This record gives sequence, C-alpha cells and structure tokens, in this order.
Amino acid sequence: MRIVVDAMGSDNAPEVEVEGALQAAQEYDHEVILVGDEVAVKRELDKHGGANDKITVVHAPEKIEMHEPAALSVRRKRKSSIVLGLDLIKHDKADSFISAGNTGAVVCAATLSLRMLPGIERPGIAIAIPTMKGTTVIIDVGANIDPKPIHMFQYAVMADAYCRYILHKPSPKIGLLNVGEEESKGTEFIKEAHTLLSESKLNFIGNIEGRDIYVGNADIVLCDGFVGNVILKVSESVVDTLVKMIKNEIQSSVIATIGAALAGSAFASLKKKMDYAEYGGAPLLGIDGRVIISHGSSTAKAIKNAIRVAAEFKTQNVNRHILEELETV
Amino acid sequence: MRIVVDAMGSDNAPEVEVEGALQAAQEYDHEVILVGDEVAVKRELDKHGGANDKITVVHAPEKIEMHEPAALSVRRKRKSSIVLGLDLIKHDKADSFISAGNTGAVVCAATLSLRMLPGIERPGIAIAIPTMKGTTVIIDVGANIDPKPIHMFQYAVMADAYCRYILHKPSPKIGLLNVGEEESKGTEFIKEAHTLLSESKLNFIGNIEGRDIYVGNADIVLCDGFVGNVILKVSESVVDTLVKMIKNEIQSSVIATIGAALAGSAFASLKKKMDYAEYGGAPLLGIDGRVIISHGSSTAKAIKNAIRVAAEFKTQNVNRHILEELETV
Repeated sequence: MRIVVDAMGSDNAPEVEVEGALQAAQEYDHEVILVGDEVAVKRELDKHGGANDKITVVHAPEKIEMHEPAALSVRRKRKSSIVLGLDLIKHDKADSFISAGNTGAVVCAATLSLRMLPGIERPGIAIAIPTMKGTTVIIDVGANIDPKPIHMFQYAVMADAYCRYILHKPSPKIGLLNVGEEESKGTEFIKEAHTLLSESKLNFIGNIEGRDIYVGNADIVLCDGFVGNVILKVSESVVDTLVKMIKNEIQSSVIATIGAALAGSAFASLKKKMDYAEYGGAPLLGIDGRVIISHGSSTAKAIKNAIRVAAEFKTQNVNRHILEELETV
Repeated sequence: MRIVVDAMGSDNAPEVEVEGALQAAQEYDHEVILVGDEVAVKRELDKHGGANDKITVVHAPEKIEMHEPAALSVRRKRKSSIVLGLDLIKHDKADSFISAGNTGAVVCAATLSLRMLPGIERPGIAIAIPTMKGTTVIIDVGANIDPKPIHMFQYAVMADAYCRYILHKPSPKIGLLNVGEEESKGTEFIKEAHTLLSESKLNFIGNIEGRDIYVGNADIVLCDGFVGNVILKVSESVVDTLVKMIKNEIQSSVIATIGAALAGSAFASLKKKMDYAEYGGAPLLGIDGRVIISHGSSTAKAIKNAIRVAAEFKTQNVNRHILEELETV
C-alpha cells in the first residue's frame, strides 16, 4: 500500500503531515510518499530520527495557499504539492492521495487529473460526524455548490457504498435534507431529487430536517455543497461558542470552578467522542481514484487516521462497489 | 396598543398564550385580543381569575395544524385563528399579530391579507440569536426558500431597520452568508446579491462563513430561507446533543456528578443567555402590517416578550423606516 500525503496542506504543515506519516508507517506498515518542500519536510523528518524505508519524499517547489482561487491555482502551479501528488496517483505510482490543503484546489485538480468514475457526473465530499446514535455521513460538504438533482442521487449511491464498506453499516438509511418532512416541501431541485431517490432501490427514508442530523435519524444526509459547507462550519462554531460561554460562566464563580475541575474527566471523554481527528478525513467520492480531504487544522493523529482510511478505500474496493450499485439501484 | 395573539398556535396552546397575554397586559398595559377556541381560551383564563378589561377573546372555530400545507389550509380554513386574527389587523381593529403556529400558513395568510410594503417583493423572517458579541439577526429563516438576488437586498434593508430601531444598533454590519470570504466564491445567485449589496449605501461587510455567525462577526446575516431554516434547526440540535452528551458523560462518574452540581449555577446563567424566549419571536418583515412569528415550543414568557416586541414595531415605526431606507440606500 502506497499512500501519497500532501506535506504542505494543513495549517501546521509539514509538521503534522510528517508526524502522521511516520505514525502510520509504523502502525499500519503502509508506505507513505510525502510531497512538498524537500528541505522543510526533511527537516521535520530529522526531528524524528530521519526517514526510513517506508517514507519517501518527492520535492514540490510550489504550494497552493488556502485562499487561492481553485481552478486558476491548479492551472498555474503545476509544480505544487497537490498537482504533483495527484500525478503520482494518475501514473499508478501510488494508491491514494491525502491533502489537508485548499479543498477547492484538491477537488479541481483531482477531477482534471483522475477524471470521474463512469456514470458519475460530479464529485462529492462525504464527511462522517458524531451523533447521538453513532456516526452519520453528510454529502456533499462543498465539492459542488450548485448540483443538479441527478447529482444528489449519485451522492446517495456513493455514500451508500462508503457506509457499507468503510463504516460497516449494512443498510444505511438515506435522508434528504429539507425544510420539512412532507414530500410537498422544498425547492423544485429538492422535489426532483426526492422523486429520483424514491424511485430507486436505495434505503431512502425521505426528507429529514436540520434537527434530525445530530440526533442520528439518518445514516446518510444528502444536501448540496453550499448547505453542507454551512452546516459543518455552523456546527463547529456552535460547539466552540458554547464551550467558550461555559468557560466564561464557570470562571466567574469559585464553586463552579471547583465543580468544573471535578467534572473534567467527563468533558475529556466527551471531547474524544467528538474528535474529528478520529474519523481521518473526508473522502472525495466519485473520482476515478482515491482522494481523502483532511481538515485544515488536522493533527498528526488525523493525518495518521486519514492514511488508514485511504488504504481501506483500496482494500475494500469502494469504487468498484459504487459502480456495481450504480448498475443495480 | 392592541395586540392580537393566535391563541391556538404553540405546542402548548392555549395555555402559554393565555398566560403570556395576561402577563403582558399587566406588565406593559397593552390590550390583548386572544383569537381561538372560545371555550378552551376562557377555561385557561379562568385558571388565572378570568378575563379583565385588557383581554378580549375572539372565537375562531377552526385551527390550522402544524403540518398542514400552508396555502391550502389558509384557503380552506377561513375561520381559523390565523386567518381571523390577521383579519383584525387588516380592518384596523388591532395593531400587531403574533402566532406560534404553522409558520408557512402565517406567511401565506399575512401576504394574502395584508399585502407587501410598496417596493418589497417578498417577506423575510428575521430571527435574533445570541452570539459571543451580543445579538445577531439572521434573515431569512424560512419565509422564502427560493429567493432572487433582489430579495436578498431587500432583506438587508428590512433587517437594517429592525436592528436600528428595535435592537438599537446604530450602524449594523451586514454579511452575506457564503462558502468563503472571497468575492469570487459562491453560486451565481450569491454573486449577484453580492453585487447589489456592494453598490448600495448599506454597511455591507462582504461574504461571511458559517463559522462567523456565532462569533458575532456580523450584526445581520443574509441567507436564503432554505439555508436559514437549516442553520436554526442544526444549531438547536447541536446544543441539545452536546448537553445530552455532557449529561451522559457526567452521570457515568460520581465525582463528575458532584462537580456538575457545583458548576450548576454557571449552566443556569448560560441557559438564560441562550434563552430564545427572551427575544420574543421573529418578525415577518416586508408585510404591510406587523406580524411576529414565535417558536412552536414558546413559553408564556416568550409570548409576553413577543407582545412587547410587537408593540415596539408600532411605536418605533419600523415599516416607515424600511420605506425610507428603500428610497435612500
């Protein structure tokens, strides 16, 4: 198994990428190819005793920054870690690609370089989030902000295969995010998607609302990339805000401070459950290849887990299952 | 001041409506007209010593249920509390209308009965939410799930007047919700709205992201009603889920339970800050009249505060200010 990691992607690159790669090489015995600024990457490797036979460094003299326009930067920076890293997949020199960098650029470069799976028109980013009942996958969280109803149907098929073969849910319940449960609700776009899903053999449970997501009423939540992006950012922000408000309130009382210290173990345990790093990044589904997008603020553990998931996509043949499902649903 | 309250609206109708009306009559000296099932409303009034000279009951033999289709139910149930209540406003027998019932039906009935303000094409629901920096208004949270760019511009003007004259913010910062901060981001719809807002004299701060909302980086957040609906429901659900998860974690440890009890005062104080009931409902802006939509799970306090806000809309002449701003921005 050979996994390519964009060493320049995250906010703390290349530190966390190098550390995550070393952990994955040791823990899973995968080969990791780090693509990025050779000097910077080797400096990080030296902190951990230098490279070993599981780690290769490929020099990329350019880096696409977080806020560069996606299409333009991919076209101009042919020597960037994202473009060169995906080239390795394209030319069969590696199995999967991971980046915590500019999501738009990764989506654009992967689509151009690896192309789509036959029968899939647009890629979708599928992210697993913790809920009251376990894990729910939201697709799409930002690959395509203006999809057509048929793309929503294709997201459902792809996320279904992801749930079955990576998250090991035998018959995932698929919900369409809407403003109400009734079939009559929503825009024309949503109603058309509803019809396509109802006519399929997928385990489609109908419309669900925003409040159903974290309750865990669906295993898969379908939405356009604009809405998905907003959901993720709002959710993170609500949690952050609530935690900050709790801290402020607690600090204003001595007794509450003592109480919070005693309750600390409960918070730590909760934090572990909510930790995105455990999930190892979000697959970019629909690409004829294996691409995992990690959070910009990824830790080394998140990169390590992304490498694990990237490898599972190959061993579990997720793309083949997507193609099979497309034929039968 | 005469305020009409749909007595059959909330999940706990008419109990909370009657109690809220009595509190408002006493506290603010407003007259309240309760529209609903006369027998049920009077039974509730009797629990509090019966009606007084500030409270009138108008009988409405029909009720629009929460999940009835909006347009159809308004057309068919002409004797419902929503339709009859709005009739009182239309015929100048009262100043403002409040309902915690079927939002779609209220929007539809208000638009048909009271019509739009001249120059405004579509109504928008503006909701005030607590943030790290105070209060932020999100418009629209569900009146119009498929707006045009010009409607977003009109939402901005209306929310600006609401912020200035009801929330007393002299120069509210207006942000357009998007998937990134850069002007180049978003759908064609968003880009056109961005252009309209940039060309106006409004205090438009450009695109904002989901993570900015609860930080309080904008005083007004503009989004379509589909996205706004999802934001509200997801936010409520994240808070509920987090609180349940914290409780579950805490209960699994004796020391944490003691700690949580000690920290209890901090949580109670936080809960008060987050309490939607303090905000008194969400105005349906753009209607040639004064209509406040309250949460289905409103408490008596929420109804009382909605009555206060409904009265302020008249004394502060919000609709006149909207018309003036439309001329000048």
